[in-house]
Amino acid sequence: MVVASQSLEELCVNSIRFLAIDAVEKAKSGHPGLPMGAAPMAFVLWDKFLRFNPKNPKWIDRDRFVLSAGHGCMLQYALMYLTGYDSVPIEEIKQFRQWKSKTPGHPENFVTEGVEVTTGPLGQGIANAVGLAAAEAHLAARFNKPDCKIIDHYTYVILGDGCNMEGISGEACSLAGHWGLGKLIALYDDNHISIDGSTDISFTEDVSKRFEAYGWHVQHVPDGNTNLEAIAAAIEAAKAVTDRPSMIKVTTTIGYGSPNKANTADVHGAALGASEIQLTREALGWNYEPFVIPEDALNRFRKAIERGAEYEKEWDAKFNEYKSKYPEDAAAFEQLIGGQLPDGWDKALPVYKPEDKALASRKHSEICLNALAPVVPGLIGGSADLTHSNYTELHGIGDFQKGQYDQRNVHFGVREHAMGAICNGIALHGSGLIPYGATFLVFSDYMRNSIRLSALSEARVIWVMTHDSIALGEDGPTHQPIEHVVSLRAIPNLLVMRPGDGNETSGAYKVAVSEKNRPTLLALSRQNLPNLEGTSIDAVAKGGYILSDSEGTPDIILIGTGGELYLCAKAADILRAEGIKVRVVSLPCWELFDEQSAEYKESVLPKAVRKRLAVEAGSTLGWQRYVTDDGDVIGVDTFGASAPGGVILEKFGFTVDNVVAKAKALLG
Amino acid sequence: MVVASQSLEELCVNSIRFLAIDAVEKAKSGHPGLPMGAAPMAFVLWDKFLRFNPKNPKWIDRDRFVLSAGHGCMLQYALMYLTGYDSVPIEEIKQFRQWKSKTPGHPENFVTEGVEVTTGPLGQGIANAVGLAAAEAHLAARFNKPDCKIIDHYTYVILGDGCNMEGISGEACSLAGHWGLGKLIALYDDNHISIDGSTDISFTEDVSKRFEAYGWHVQHVPDGNTNLEAIAAAIEAAKAVTDRPSMIKVTTTIGYGSPNKANTADVHGAALGASEIQLTREALGWNYEPFVIPEDALNRFRKAIERGAEYEKEWDAKFNEYKSKYPEDAAAFEQLIGGQLPDGWDKALPVYKPEDKALASRKHSEICLNALAPVVPGLIGGSADLTHSNYTELHGIGDFQKGQYDQRNVHFGVREHAMGAICNGIALHGSGLIPYGATFLVFSDYMRNSIRLSALSEARVIWVMTHDSIALGEDGPTHQPIEHVVSLRAIPNLLVMRPGDGNETSGAYKVAVSEKNRPTLLALSRQNLPNLEGTSIDAVAKGGYILSDSEGTPDIILIGTGGELYLCAKAADILRAEGIKVRVVSLPCWELFDEQSAEYKESVLPKAVRKRLAVEAGSTLGWQRYVTDDGDVIGVDTFGASAPGGVILEKFGFTVDNVVAKAKALLG
Repeated sequence: MVVASQSLEELCVNSIRFLAIDAVEKAKSGHPGLPMGAAPMAFVLWDKFLRFNPKNPKWIDRDRFVLSAGHGCMLQYALMYLTGYDSVPIEEIKQFRQWKSKTPGHPENFVTEGVEVTTGPLGQGIANAVGLAAAEAHLAARFNKPDCKIIDHYTYVILGDGCNMEGISGEACSLAGHWGLGKLIALYDDNHISIDGSTDISFTEDVSKRFEAYGWHVQHVPDGNTNLEAIAAAIEAAKAVTDRPSMIKVTTTIGYGSPNKANTADVHGAALGASEIQLTREALGWNYEPFVIPEDALNRFRKAIERGAEYEKEWDAKFNEYKSKYPEDAAAFEQLIGGQLPDGWDKALPVYKPEDKALASRKHSEICLNALAPVVPGLIGGSADLTHSNYTELHGIGDFQKGQYDQRNVHFGVREHAMGAICNGIALHGSGLIPYGATFLVFSDYMRNSIRLSALSEARVIWVMTHDSIALGEDGPTHQPIEHVVSLRAIPNLLVMRPGDGNETSGAYKVAVSEKNRPTLLALSRQNLPNLEGTSIDAVAKGGYILSDSEGTPDIILIGTGGELYLCAKAADILRAEGIKVRVVSLPCWELFDEQSAEYKESVLPKAVRKRLAVEAGSTLGWQRYVTDDGDVIGVDTFGASAPGGVILEKFGFTVDNVVAKAKALLG
Repeated sequence: MVVASQSLEELCVNSIRFLAIDAVEKAKSGHPGLPMGAAPMAFVLWDKFLRFNPKNPKWIDRDRFVLSAGHGCMLQYALMYLTGYDSVPIEEIKQFRQWKSKTPGHPENFVTEGVEVTTGPLGQGIANAVGLAAAEAHLAARFNKPDCKIIDHYTYVILGDGCNMEGISGEACSLAGHWGLGKLIALYDDNHISIDGSTDISFTEDVSKRFEAYGWHVQHVPDGNTNLEAIAAAIEAAKAVTDRPSMIKVTTTIGYGSPNKANTADVHGAALGASEIQLTREALGWNYEPFVIPEDALNRFRKAIERGAEYEKEWDAKFNEYKSKYPEDAAAFEQLIGGQLPDGWDKALPVYKPEDKALASRKHSEICLNALAPVVPGLIGGSADLTHSNYTELHGIGDFQKGQYDQRNVHFGVREHAMGAICNGIALHGSGLIPYGATFLVFSDYMRNSIRLSALSEARVIWVMTHDSIALGEDGPTHQPIEHVVSLRAIPNLLVMRPGDGNETSGAYKVAVSEKNRPTLLALSRQNLPNLEGTSIDAVAKGGYILSDSEGTPDIILIGTGGELYLCAKAADILRAEGIKVRVVSLPCWELFDEQSAEYKESVLPKAVRKRLAVEAGSTLGWQRYVTDDGDVIGVDTFGASAPGGVILEKFGFTVDNVVAKAKALLG
C-alpha cells in the first residue's frame, strides 16, 4: 500500500485508527481491529449525519449512537475525544482500560457521559437501539405537532458479525421491522472475521436477505474501507426511507492498514505490537507521535462543537415556539423528560384490607399498572406474548404499533431477550419513560443478561415476572422457577420483590417507580393470595418488617415472602393459641432490608432470637443469612413437578401444618 | 362444516385431536389448540415416514421426533399411545398433567420413555433437534461404510410461531444451514396465533425467506388442515434434498374443528369446555366417548409396532453384517453407544506437583480435553467463538463441518444459547457422545435456560466456562462474573466446579465425564494459578476436602475455591508461623460436598470450629452455610471494574494480606 498525500477526510479516518492503535498498545489490552476497519463509516456518520452536542451530551433531541460491537469501544472514545466531549480528554484515552478511567474496556453509560448504553455483551446494543428508536417514535407521536416537531432524531448503531449471530439481535430486528421504525439505521460492519477466525467457519447465512425478511430496507456498500462517498450516500438513502428501519451492510477489512494482521483474527482483540504499528504507520502514511492528532483533523472534528451548539439553539427556539403554542403539552413534556413524577402519584396505588377479595399478586400487579398509567405518563410496556397471563395490559390504552406509536401497550412477541434490551433502551433514552417487561419468572433465564445490564447500567425498568413458583402447577418443571428468585437476588443493584398480598404489591410498585437508578423485579404469584392483617405500602420500602407479633421476646420468628407469607401468618395463629410467642416477619425484598440501619434490622430480627423459620417456595440457598445457623427453611431444592398447583404445594410441604410442625421441631 | 363419512386417515387425525381435547378437558388444563391443528402433519409424519419402534424406544437408529412446541404435548402423548408405546397407556392419557403421571404438562424425557428431549421453553426443541441431527451426521460419518450404513436416520421437529420468534431458534437454524444438515426436517405449524392473539400484532416477518437466508430448503403447504397428500409430498421432497436442512411451512388452523374457538388464542392454552367440545364433535363427526378410539383407527396406528419390529430387525441384520466385516469399528460403536468408557480412561488425566508451572485453569482444561480426546471417543464440542480464549480446541482433530462431520471440534459461532441446546441434543441422542460447550462464564447468562434444561433432562454435558471472576481484568463489568457461580449452584442437578489448580481441574473432568445423568459446569480462571500441595484428582470427587492442616483442633478454617484457594494456602503459612492453628479446606464443588456423609462433612468442617473464612471472587451469597454465623467471607457483591486483573484483585481485597487480616479479625 502506497500512500500519496492524504485528504483531510483520510487524515480524520486515520486519526480514529491511530488513537485506537495507540490506546490499545499502551494498555496492552483491547480491540484495535474494529476501530481500524469501521473508522470510515464512523467518521462519515459522526461528521456528516449525527446530530449531537458534545458540550451537552444530554440534549434531549440528539441523535442516539450505539456501538453494539462494544469491544471496539476505542472507536467511540476516539470519536468522543475528537469531537470534544468533556468526558473523554486525551488523558483518558491514555488511561484506556485502567482503574477508574473514563475509558473502560467496554462502553459504560454510567462511567462516561455521552455513552448512551452499556454494550459489550454482543447483540445487546442493537436491541437497545430498537428501544431507543421506539422511545423516539413514542415521544414524537405523543408530543409533536404538525407545525412543530420537538422530538425528531435518529438512532444509529454500528454492529458486527458477532451481534448478528446472537439470537437477541434477530429478535429485536424482527420486532423493529414489524414496528417499521424508520429512524433506526444500522451499519453492519461486515468484516468476515470473528474471534475464531473467518466467519466462513460458522456464519455463512445471507444476512442481508434475513434483514429483508424482517421487513428492513437493506443496502450494501462493498468498499467500506475507502469509499466515504458511498457510505454517505447509503446513509442518505437510509434516512429517506421512513417507513422501515435500514440496515447498511458495509464491507470492511478488520484491522485495515496493518500489513500483516489486517483481515485476520489476530487484530480482533490484541495490541498490534510495536513493529506492526510501525508498519501500519508507514502503510497509512501516519507520521505522528502516539496520541497526537494533526491540527487539521482535530479542527475538522471539533466543528462538532459549533454544529452541536447550533443544533441545540435551533431546538431551543423550536421548543420555545412549542411552549407558547402548546403550553400544556410543553409542561407535560418537560415534566416527563425532567424525570419528575406528578405530586401524589403514589396515592393512586390501591390499599387493601384483610376482608378484601383474595387475588393473585399478578392480578394486583395489573391493578397497580392500571392505577399508575394515568398518573405516571412515562409508564410503557408489555409482555413477551403472555399479556393475559402476566396481566400487563393497560386498559383503555391502545397498542404501540406502526402508525400508533403514541400508545403504551407493547407486544414484544415471544422474544424475552429482546424485550429486556429494548426496555433498557427505552429507559436509557433518558426521557423519563418507565418501561416494564413481563414474562413468566422461569423465562427470566432467557433474558438474564438484559436484566443484569439493566442493573449495571442503572436503568429504571420494572420486570414483571409472574408464575413465580411451583404453585403455577400443571405446566410442570420446565415452567416452575426454583432457583430463579435467589439467582436474581444475587445480581447487584437489582431489587427483587416478592410481595405477599395486595398492599405489598402496591408497595413494590411504589418502590419500583421511585427508584430512579436501579431496576426492580417483581416475582408475582399465579395463585390467589389472601390479603393479610399488617401489610402496608410503606413497610415494603424497608424490605422487611414485622407483620405480627406476640408480646415480649418471641420464641420463634417465622419469615415469609410472597405466596408463603400467609402460611406463616396462619401458622402463627395456631402456635400462639398453644402459648408460643411468635413473630411473623415479611421479607419481600432482601436488598432493601439489608440497606436498613443496624438498629432497624435488629428491631425486626433480634440477634438473640435464633429460632427462625423461613418459608419460601424456591431455593433455600442464601436464607441462612436470615434464619441463622439455628434456624430452618421450608423451600424447594429440586425441580418441580406437573400437577395442579395446590397438590404440588402440599407435596412439597407448603402447608400450614408443615410450618407449624417445622416450627415446633425448631423449638425442640 | 358438514362431515360426510370419514376416511380412515381422517379418523386417525381426529383420534389425535380428540385425545388431546378429552385429556385437556379432564385435566381442566393444557393446550388443545396445537394438537388439533397439527394433527394432520403429525399423523402423516408418524404414519408414513417416522421410523421408530414403539416397543423399543431406545433403538439407536430410530428417527428422532421433537415437539419443539412442547406445550402441545398431548399431540405427542396421543401419538405415543396410539402407536403403542408402553410408557403411555390410555390410563396415563387420562392422568394428563396429574401428580406422578407419565404425561406431564410438557414433554419430559426423564419421565416418559420415548420422549427424546424435554421441551416447553420455546425454541429449545428446534435447537435440540439441530444437536440430534448433528449427532447423527457425526456418527454416520465416523462409522458408516460405503456398503453398510448403520447410522442413517432423520430428525423431525414440529415447531410453532413461538419457537420461530425466539432468538435461540434463529441461532440454531443459522448453524444448521451452515452445517448443511440434510436429514433435519422441520415442520413449521404456521397457525398465525400465539398467546396474545394473531401473530399480526408482533410477528409479521417472512419466516420462509429467513430460512432461505440461512441456507435451508423451504417449502409451503398452504392447506395443512386437510391436504394430507400435500404434507406427504413435501416431506418426501424434503427427504430428497440431502445437502441442506428442510423447513416445511404448513399453514394450519389452531383448534381446527372447534366452531367457535378455532383460529383464536382462546383455544391455545385452555380446555374447550363441555359445550364447545360437543360442537366440535358434531363438526368433525366424532361420535365416540371421551378417550375411546375407534378400532379401525387404533389398528392403523398400531401397525407401527409391526413396522418398528421390522425396522429394527433389518437394522440388526445390517449391524451383524457390519460386525462381521468391520469388527473393530463395530466394537468401538458398541462401546460408544453402550455408554461404556474405556478401562482406565481417567489415567489419561494429568497429575501435577507444586513445582509444576503455574497455569490458568482454562489452560489445564485444554490439557484435560486433549488428554481425554483419544481415550474418550465420545468427547465432542467447542466454543461460541472463543476457542482460543476458552482453550477448547482438540489438537490434531479437525473441525466438524459440512463434508467432515466425523471431526470433533465444533464452532458454534457467537451463539451461546443455541450451543447450549445443541449440546443437550447431542447428549440426548443417547449414543454415548459427551458434548462440551464453552464461553466466558458471564455469558452463561445467554444460555441459562439451556444449562437448566441439561440439568432437568439429565444430560451429560460439560459446560466449560472460563474467565470466571473479576480477575479477567480489563474487559470490565460487562464481562466479569459476580453472581454467576452462586446462581448456577442454585440450579438443581447441576454440578458446579471451580477447580483451584491442575489436579483439581483434572479431578473436575473426571467427575464430569463419570457423571452420566447430570451436567457439570466448570468455572475456570483466565489467570495463572500455582499448583498447590495437597490437591488431588480423587479429592475433588468429594466436593470438598482438607488441603492442609495444623495439628489439633484448628483455631480457624480457611475455605477457598478456584483462583482464591492459593490465597488461603499462603495466608495459612503466615498465620501458622504466628502460632495459629489453621486448616485450609478446598471446596471446588458445593453440590458434591453436600452429598457426602455427615461424618465426612464433620471431618472436614467440624461443627465445633466456627471461626471460618471463605475466600471466593464472586458473590458472598450462600457462603454462610459453610462459614456459619460466626464466620466471614471475602467476596464481591458489587459489579466489577475495568483494569488489569491484578489491580482489580487487589482493589477488591483478594490478597494474602487481606486474608490474613480478616482471619485475625475473626479470631479477635
